[in-house]
Parts: sequence; C-alpha cells; structure tokens
Amino acid sequence: PEWQLVERHGIQQLERLYTFSDFRQALEFTCRVGELAEQAGHHPALLTEWGRVTVTWWTHKIHGLHRNDFIMAARTDELIER
Amino acid sequence: PEWQLVERHGIQQLERLYTFSDFRQALEFTCRVGELAEQAGHHPALLTEWGRVTVTWWTHKIHGLHRNDFIMAARTDELIER
Repeated sequence: PEWQLVERHGIQQLERLYTFSDFRQALEFTCRVGELAEQAGHHPALLTEWGRVTVTWWTHKIHGLHRNDFIMAARTDELIER
Repeated sequence: PEWQLVERHGIQQLERLYTFSDFRQALEFTCRVGELAEQAGHHPALLTEWGRVTVTWWTHKIHGLHRNDFIMAARTDELIER
C-alpha cells in the first residue's frame, strides 16, 4: 500500500507505511523525514517501530489537507528512492 | 501524566507522552530513545509529532509487559533528566 487518505478525529490526513529490515533503518528514515520537515517548516506525525515507519501528513492550520501535504508526501517518497 | 498502563489490541503496554517546545527537540529525543533501544536490544513504538513524543514499551514475544519494560521506561525518563 502506498499513500492512503485516512480520517482521524474528523481530520483528513495522508498516510503511508514504510517497511525496513530492522529498527535502526526505520529510525534513520524517521530522522531523514524529520530533517525534511524542518527544512520545509511543515511537520508530520512519525510513528517509528521495529522495521516500520508510519508517516502522516496534514495541515494543522486548516485541520485537513492542503496541496503542500501532497508535495511533502512525494518528497518523503524521494527519500526512499535515493 | 507520567507512565500509563494502556491496553491496545489486547496487549498491555506502558506509555508516556513527553512534551517539547518544538519539532526538533522532539525528534532529537526520539533519536536518543532509539539509541537506547538499540543498545538494549528492546524496541518501543515512538510517535514523534510537533513538540511531543509518545513512547510505548511492551514485550512483543509475550504480547504484554515484562519486568524489562519497566526498566526501559525508567531508562527513558533518565534521558530527559540529563
């Protein structure tokens, strides 16, 4: 599964699960997405577990999705492809 | 609120929310807890958001809590106190 549209507490969000072969790789990906978020000034929720990271984007200010969230989702994917 | 006992999908877990003044500090805490987890060979779920990290410990093998989870919770607290 790639990006999915989910609704949580009445807020539409973009969510994707990325899988890895261990905890360290998952944690490193979290850190990379975090750096991207800091650079962009737009911050996701990042759930890091053994071998998996769930990335969730939405725009806090509008309690939903903005075009910027789709851009950030695409940029998150690019971090994996490198 | 400090550590709370929660039950999720029938699995008892120890959970605590830590708050920070921005995303970067939250992300740095996540990385510190991740390093602790790697050293201990015991891995939590880490939910990183703007200004907050939710840490959840449980023992996958027994689908619940082991003494080791309480030790890891205490060691997570120590990372903040430093």
